[in-house]
Amino acid sequence: MTIDELLALSIKSGDSEAFRKSREKWDKIAKPIDGLGLFEETVSRLSYVQEKVCPDLSKKALIIMCADNGVFEEGVSQTEQRVTRDVAQLMGQKKSSVGSMASGYPLDFFVYDLGINCEDTPGGVINEKVRQSTGNFTKESAMSQKECLLAVQTGMDAVKKCAEEGYGIVATGEMGIGNTTTSTALLCALKGLDPKEYVGRGAGLSDMGLKRKTEVIEKGLLLHRGEKRRQKITSGEETFEALCCLGGLDIAGLVGVFIGGAIYHVPIVIDGLISAVAALTAEKLVPGCRQFMFASHMGREKGMEVILRELGLKAVIHADLALGEGTGAILLFPMLDMVMSLYSKGTDFDETGIDQYERFEK
Amino acid sequence: MTIDELLALSIKSGDSEAFRKSREKWDKIAKPIDGLGLFEETVSRLSYVQEKVCPDLSKKALIIMCADNGVFEEGVSQTEQRVTRDVAQLMGQKKSSVGSMASGYPLDFFVYDLGINCEDTPGGVINEKVRQSTGNFTKESAMSQKECLLAVQTGMDAVKKCAEEGYGIVATGEMGIGNTTTSTALLCALKGLDPKEYVGRGAGLSDMGLKRKTEVIEKGLLLHRGEKRRQKITSGEETFEALCCLGGLDIAGLVGVFIGGAIYHVPIVIDGLISAVAALTAEKLVPGCRQFMFASHMGREKGMEVILRELGLKAVIHADLALGEGTGAILLFPMLDMVMSLYSKGTDFDETGIDQYERFEK
Repeated sequence: MTIDELLALSIKSGDSEAFRKSREKWDKIAKPIDGLGLFEETVSRLSYVQEKVCPDLSKKALIIMCADNGVFEEGVSQTEQRVTRDVAQLMGQKKSSVGSMASGYPLDFFVYDLGINCEDTPGGVINEKVRQSTGNFTKESAMSQKECLLAVQTGMDAVKKCAEEGYGIVATGEMGIGNTTTSTALLCALKGLDPKEYVGRGAGLSDMGLKRKTEVIEKGLLLHRGEKRRQKITSGEETFEALCCLGGLDIAGLVGVFIGGAIYHVPIVIDGLISAVAALTAEKLVPGCRQFMFASHMGREKGMEVILRELGLKAVIHADLALGEGTGAILLFPMLDMVMSLYSKGTDFDETGIDQYERFEK
Repeated sequence: MTIDELLALSIKSGDSEAFRKSREKWDKIAKPIDGLGLFEETVSRLSYVQEKVCPDLSKKALIIMCADNGVFEEGVSQTEQRVTRDVAQLMGQKKSSVGSMASGYPLDFFVYDLGINCEDTPGGVINEKVRQSTGNFTKESAMSQKECLLAVQTGMDAVKKCAEEGYGIVATGEMGIGNTTTSTALLCALKGLDPKEYVGRGAGLSDMGLKRKTEVIEKGLLLHRGEKRRQKITSGEETFEALCCLGGLDIAGLVGVFIGGAIYHVPIVIDGLISAVAALTAEKLVPGCRQFMFASHMGREKGMEVILRELGLKAVIHADLALGEGTGAILLFPMLDMVMSLYSKGTDFDETGIDQYERFEK
């Protein structure tokens, strides 16, 4: 795939008729109109994406993209770089945080090594290593265009495989020490934001660490965006350029996952900041992708609200999460199971003899 | 139980040491500090209530209080009064909305008839009928003090039974046409609020219906609180009086459930507005109850934010829910299962060789 081919991708809409019928089905169930609020809309959007009134969520997947970031050497994280590999190894055995959370819950894991800074790929992790860590964005581009395209392609292919294997919904996760730095830098570039306002503590920075992280991001923005660094990016070309310069292989992989969701009509669940920045990047590269995206949680990092507003999505979980790995995204799943259970098995007003509630214009 | 006995109840604190040890246990798990945000605090609060570092949530219950409201005759609802009985009957068969949602999920239902407006009690529903519907609060007290105490006692006994049977957490739910009117009236009385600012659409009122509901609540406040209706209630005696005059048997039953949670050290999960008003009432009757309460969702009704702030609780689900029956409260359960799975089975830093994250003062 070339850059031109990527930017020329066009997205086939979902089924608006299935969406409409799903809304009607909700109103027939014996409960107040819109009683389940955002969850009703979520199910109807799943109908739209899957193009059937009763979406099938029986098979669920979590795709986790792992990679290291060259900017780590600027001292933007509290921990050591080898933690990326260590946690990826735990992920491959379903023993990392997200693995422990999902223990006993039916969910399949696909963990990708796109650029962990080691020669091997840990067991249970899929080897799609593009390179060992990206470059330090305060000194050079994080990756070349070719490397970035490879990672995007891997993400798209991962979703294609999920679609072929009948997964009805895919959650996104990531692991890469330093990736709240790369994703915040990319977000600031895309939206023309001042990093001072949007830098967060990631996995737990001190005040000094926070100041350092802000300076590092500003340095990267100055190097790669110069005078234009407070201007919003509008074109696909500039978006791709920013992804290569300031992003990471994990982010690029997730960009591919969101684009893949739109191409193969698989609902993709956004996790926290890194995943959300990838979602925004995907929408700016291939407009229309957002129709196939679903928010899960609001996270603790400041950029989330900006991104979800731009994508027109609402997060149902507000729990100040800051763990990554897809932990927030998969928390949505068992709630969806309960909601789908009402949607598919719920008693209709017809069966109860109770009059259906009337929908008033407000 | 007399009013004096109710107001003299004193709450034994939970185990602060278990809370502290639980926080330590979280920090040892291989993840960023506070990575699971509010969920970490929730688990540690469960440790406090259950007085053990690893709280046991293997058995979960939903207590649903059903009753009719005399104020229904003022035209404050879109639907007919018999819906209370019809839905309670469905609940008894686990076929109402909350029953369908919980199908396939391990959760035991205890549905109480405290005052449904019919002679019988539907099958599967526990008969603790105090009277058939309350009185119309625009003309008289909703119930006598004796009736109210009976309903509160039933709620307390319901939790006692759950504690004896080993339930580790109890969700609250209700069914009673007109009960967003009674609960909003009670909330306004307790907090000295203007109903115009806090009346919501309940199960889906039109603009005209909303105006009518506001007038009806103001009429009730004027009759029972007179000149004092914009003054906050501070004493237990006045709180109890307001509950009798403006509340309902369902609300009184839930007040008993929250008090029971505090007495028997069972965590009680608040659902939407009606349940939240009962929680606030319980705290004002027996200070300290709130330590044993857990919020679930923010709901759509305007009063929720005021109540949760006063109780010092935060809701993790923000989904504009307005269904009742405990549907929002039980959505918290499968998320807690995932979180508890990490808490109890998670990999410690010790096992990984990764250095533990440091907790900085912010």
